[in-house]
Amino acid sequence: MQNECEEKIMKYIHQAQYYETDQMGIIHHSNYIRWMEEARIAYMDELGFPYKKVEEAGIISPVLSVQCDYKAMTYFGDRVCIDVKLSSFRGVKYEISYEMRDEKTGELRASATSAHCYLGKNGRPSNIKKELPELYAKMMEEFPLLYETMQKEVSGKA
Amino acid sequence: MQNECEEKIMKYIHQAQYYETDQMGIIHHSNYIRWMEEARIAYMDELGFPYKKVEEAGIISPVLSVQCDYKAMTYFGDRVCIDVKLSSFRGVKYEISYEMRDEKTGELRASATSAHCYLGKNGRPSNIKKELPELYAKMMEEFPLLYETMQKEVSGKA
Amino acid sequence: MQNECEEKIMKYIHQAQYYETDQMGIIHHSNYIRWMEEARIAYMDELGFPYKKVEEAGIISPVLSVQCDYKAMTYFGDRVCIDVKLSSFRGVKYEISYEMRDEKTGELRASATSAHCYLGKNGRPSNIKKELPELYAKMMEEFPLLYETMQKEVSGKA
Amino acid sequence: MQNECEEKIMKYIHQAQYYETDQMGIIHHSNYIRWMEEARIAYMDELGFPYKKVEEAGIISPVLSVQCDYKAMTYFGDRVCIDVKLSSFRGVKYEISYEMRDEKTGELRASATSAHCYLGKNGRPSNIKKELPELYAKMMEEFPLLYETMQKEVSGKA
Repeated sequence: MQNECEEKIMKYIHQAQYYETDQMGIIHHSNYIRWMEEARIAYMDELGFPYKKVEEAGIISPVLSVQCDYKAMTYFGDRVCIDVKLSSFRGVKYEISYEMRDEKTGELRASATSAHCYLGKNGRPSNIKKELPELYAKMMEEFPLLYETMQKEVSGKA
Repeated sequence: MQNECEEKIMKYIHQAQYYETDQMGIIHHSNYIRWMEEARIAYMDELGFPYKKVEEAGIISPVLSVQCDYKAMTYFGDRVCIDVKLSSFRGVKYEISYEMRDEKTGELRASATSAHCYLGKNGRPSNIKKELPELYAKMMEEFPLLYETMQKEVSGKA
Repeated sequence: MQNECEEKIMKYIHQAQYYETDQMGIIHHSNYIRWMEEARIAYMDELGFPYKKVEEAGIISPVLSVQCDYKAMTYFGDRVCIDVKLSSFRGVKYEISYEMRDEKTGELRASATSAHCYLGKNGRPSNIKKELPELYAKMMEEFPLLYETMQKEVSGKA
Repeated sequence: MQNECEEKIMKYIHQAQYYETDQMGIIHHSNYIRWMEEARIAYMDELGFPYKKVEEAGIISPVLSVQCDYKAMTYFGDRVCIDVKLSSFRGVKYEISYEMRDEKTGELRASATSAHCYLGKNGRPSNIKKELPELYAKMMEEFPLLYETMQKEVSGKA
């Protein structure tokens, strides 16, 4: 399914901090959810959807869901390389997926997804296509295959 | 499916803290993952599986996966009532589910699950039945239906 | 100096969470700073200065400084009893002090202070006396000795 | 006072994360305490006192106190440049100081100090000079002025 869209993958590095450890001697699992956000924001920046601009336009992008499978433990000082990519985008809702690996060994530490939407000032879903057309255009330009898929879906529904 | 096991549900209250808010003016989504842990630990205490005792026995119980659907926003000062229950238990692996509601209005804020296992000192899966038989017995006593289900599964596989 | 004001001390309990531990096997020191906020907010509520109302009036109350002396380690599951009190109040600036003790043994875990001010919407210091007179009056009523001290200071300066 | 020891200052960059913001729209003050740890660990690495090695030698280095003056607000996305240096070292106890500035504008955001000691496996103060002589030697070599000061103090006391 993820092959539907061109694989614009970004690599993001997070170095595991001491304050992220717990008494099991490993990184506490809740921090991976925060690293996903770090990686996502860096990725959106790169795609031309900088989160700051989105918020300045009065649009917020809350998290609808997160899902994370922990595959191996991460330790203090480890550098975790996060492959992050947009796996679906529907104008109002989008999904991001993540693969977190130890930078040195390549060992898979976790794989995860998160789903998000855009909400306008009124707290209602905001259609990026209408309210941030410039960003939307950029998005479509970067993901022609994704765009095509969306067109088909729209026709399919018609 | 959750009716398979007696519904030993515990209610756990978390009051949303100022330091848990973000600049969207809501509680940051990563905190729900931490509240799940708070509720889970209180629940395990109540079931007679106190986490401290488990760790003292040289067994750790890492998180294998988390999944959280955010249904409505939570605000600073809100008291969140978390219904937590064991939804499956297989001796080595168990799953907990959570429903988080606003205490005052009953509004559903999030529903979530987490999966866990027990690992011995050697880092290998630890069978609670063998290594903490007392706790295991208590578990089975409290969840006779769950026990029955497990028996059936074992026979079914045989 | 703290005897200058009536000792309106409040006790606030925080139960140390698993996610607050670090790989030293103790509660990470940064969490005490968060507990100070929890205790401060509960205290301000009780004094009739609920933080929510203050923010609704367009006033924020940032932290100017924190200082914490760690006296003994705190462990997962410990219930920490925080004595919190207003140690000075000058209309624009106030200082809170904290003593954190193990609830069971009474052992002193940390003693700390924090300083704060009130800022209006324009980002400038906000005089609570003028902008939230009701709250100010309540404050003065609760701390007659503090009020007296402030009067003397004003006269002294005149 | 800080001139007593050669000014081995290290610069450490922390980029302020979204999950570090609060509903005031700024970085929550408790995070600065965590950044101090990030900077301190990077600094100790550079000095040849890598925290991992210290812990592997069975020695822990708990925080005795922290003190932080917040001078200006930090916002999501800001890159904070932290000047970190050892301001005193007595074999068992040491103090680190920090200046946090906006990388772009140079504006001072916070200045802070933290004090630490070394504890052996028995939970008692550990004299690095005896228990980690290699590290101690390296330390003295890097801080000849600090060494000299310590010699004088010892003589002074004799």
